[in-house]
Amino acid sequence: MPVSNASHVLVTGGTGFIGSHTVLELVSQGYKVVVVDNFCNSCEEPLRRIEKLAGLKDKIPLFKLDLADRDGLRAVFREFSFSSVIHFAALKAVGESVHKPLTYYRNNIAGTLNLLDVMVDFGVTNIVFSSSATVYKANSDGKAFREDSELGCTSPYGRTKLYMENIIQDVVNAEKGWNAIMLRYFNPTGAHESGMMGEDPMQIPNNLMPYMSQVAIGKLDRLHVFGTDYNTRDGTGVRDYIHIMDLAEAHVAALKRLPANQGYEVFNIGSGSGQSVLEMIDAMSAACGHSIPYSKDPRRSGDIDTILCDPTKAADVLGFKVSRTLQQMCTDLWRWQTANPNGYVQ
Amino acid sequence: MPVSNASHVLVTGGTGFIGSHTVLELVSQGYKVVVVDNFCNSCEEPLRRIEKLAGLKDKIPLFKLDLADRDGLRAVFREFSFSSVIHFAALKAVGESVHKPLTYYRNNIAGTLNLLDVMVDFGVTNIVFSSSATVYKANSDGKAFREDSELGCTSPYGRTKLYMENIIQDVVNAEKGWNAIMLRYFNPTGAHESGMMGEDPMQIPNNLMPYMSQVAIGKLDRLHVFGTDYNTRDGTGVRDYIHIMDLAEAHVAALKRLPANQGYEVFNIGSGSGQSVLEMIDAMSAACGHSIPYSKDPRRSGDIDTILCDPTKAADVLGFKVSRTLQQMCTDLWRWQTANPNGYVQ
Repeated sequence: MPVSNASHVLVTGGTGFIGSHTVLELVSQGYKVVVVDNFCNSCEEPLRRIEKLAGLKDKIPLFKLDLADRDGLRAVFREFSFSSVIHFAALKAVGESVHKPLTYYRNNIAGTLNLLDVMVDFGVTNIVFSSSATVYKANSDGKAFREDSELGCTSPYGRTKLYMENIIQDVVNAEKGWNAIMLRYFNPTGAHESGMMGEDPMQIPNNLMPYMSQVAIGKLDRLHVFGTDYNTRDGTGVRDYIHIMDLAEAHVAALKRLPANQGYEVFNIGSGSGQSVLEMIDAMSAACGHSIPYSKDPRRSGDIDTILCDPTKAADVLGFKVSRTLQQMCTDLWRWQTANPNGYVQ
Repeated sequence: MPVSNASHVLVTGGTGFIGSHTVLELVSQGYKVVVVDNFCNSCEEPLRRIEKLAGLKDKIPLFKLDLADRDGLRAVFREFSFSSVIHFAALKAVGESVHKPLTYYRNNIAGTLNLLDVMVDFGVTNIVFSSSATVYKANSDGKAFREDSELGCTSPYGRTKLYMENIIQDVVNAEKGWNAIMLRYFNPTGAHESGMMGEDPMQIPNNLMPYMSQVAIGKLDRLHVFGTDYNTRDGTGVRDYIHIMDLAEAHVAALKRLPANQGYEVFNIGSGSGQSVLEMIDAMSAACGHSIPYSKDPRRSGDIDTILCDPTKAADVLGFKVSRTLQQMCTDLWRWQTANPNGYVQ
């Protein structure tokens, strides 16, 4: 049984990009947070910066723990009383997942099964889960995805997210009093406006914006624009970008809904408007004050024209809307990149 | 590294209903078999009977092992050299899976992930996987399912089978030289013709035929026929039944195909013809020589009119066709039931 009476929010993967910004938003709104992370793709430093930014007197409790370690996880649940869990911890590189499927399934699914199991054992019945727009079946009509759009994944990474959604739904159906919210993110980018926190890819970035940011600062040679003959306004792929602090706020909005005992729910989290790769290059060039070199390269297999979010349900039910502009995403990203050219580890 | 030069077939769940009959068929055809089983729903006795029936001089190597125990599994792979794996080990009760989804996901999926991981480590690249017709999306047109029919599951049990198929396919795509055959069973029943081996449900049976068999011998009161207003020839549900020894032979046919380096393949294993519940009652009554009491009860939610197998692909590619009749299924089942009224444990 928990020895502490205070009710905490457990954040798994709380030192990663989305996790750390969400922890910052949580503690800024007065939540007591406990973080578990295996640091396989992150470090402790974001928590130090969160403590500084939020003016915390005490350190955020942090456990270096892999979710494979069920006994370790149980020990954390014995030490703290949790009202709810926000579950970010997962591997997330699509390409890597194709080459190492078992690593992805074991880390993402077996880890989640341990977490859910311990939650059941300790009577913790509220979870916000970090899902992804990658669970949607690619369409070629360019229509925005709604939560009830057809699902279907092309990578092991995507399948881990889809399977975890379904597993959590089965648990909600089987267990009494469980509430679960799946947040399907579109393309998170940007950084905290302080420039003290941002995305810190440990290898060469997989995603457009961190890659572009490293080109802008001269760490990488040039950006590759994969595909310039898509059926979009300028021929390059259109995606729905969302500022990381908007996304962090969406998690807190979801957390606030859980006590409504709504059962299992899914929400898209995106802006509802799309930007092409060339538009993102223009926006980032404006933010950094110089042009960003890029080459036009062939399409990558599996990519499609347009991926857009229909954000209506999140607006209606969670009261969540993005409030930050594309320009802010780029300005904040650039502030972080220039203040921390090597990420958190200087 | 393996200490034995002999090449064995590893059978997980080899003491269960389908597993044990397949082991019998394997050793009868001269294969060297090693069994791992956690005995969560079975016992050792089937192996003793297999040894007797097949006239084996040596005991079949058997390890009491849960697939959650990766170190234990590695020890088995160190002791024996495996040419291939037939993977049966799984929980299989649809209804139970709805109430205990985490138990099913952990046992079936996390266990399979361990097995696949150890296979990769030891360079064992051939697997036959025990899948199920439950992975098909229910249709109401009564058409036989083909391997390319739409998929979709309604229970956690079904999802574990579908996810494991996809996980194995991802491994085949990622690893060099892997071959995997998924066998989607329809409704296995019957028993070995000796009457020495058969299905041994440890609790009240979930499936029609073992239930009917226990009614026939007087252990259960009466059979419940759930739904008599289906759109079938007599109003009761039509399913595709297959004799357990036909099914066992299908596994050996699949095993023989693996060295053809065919990559990932899926086969339906069924008879291609359907019997209604009332027809099964008639056939079993004929086998046991007296009528079987039953009541007409309301439909169960989730059940559909007709589930039929299109067995063409298995015939064309594996050269597999069922050779045993409905009457043999019932006669053999009844022989097993009367010779072993309490199953293996007398």
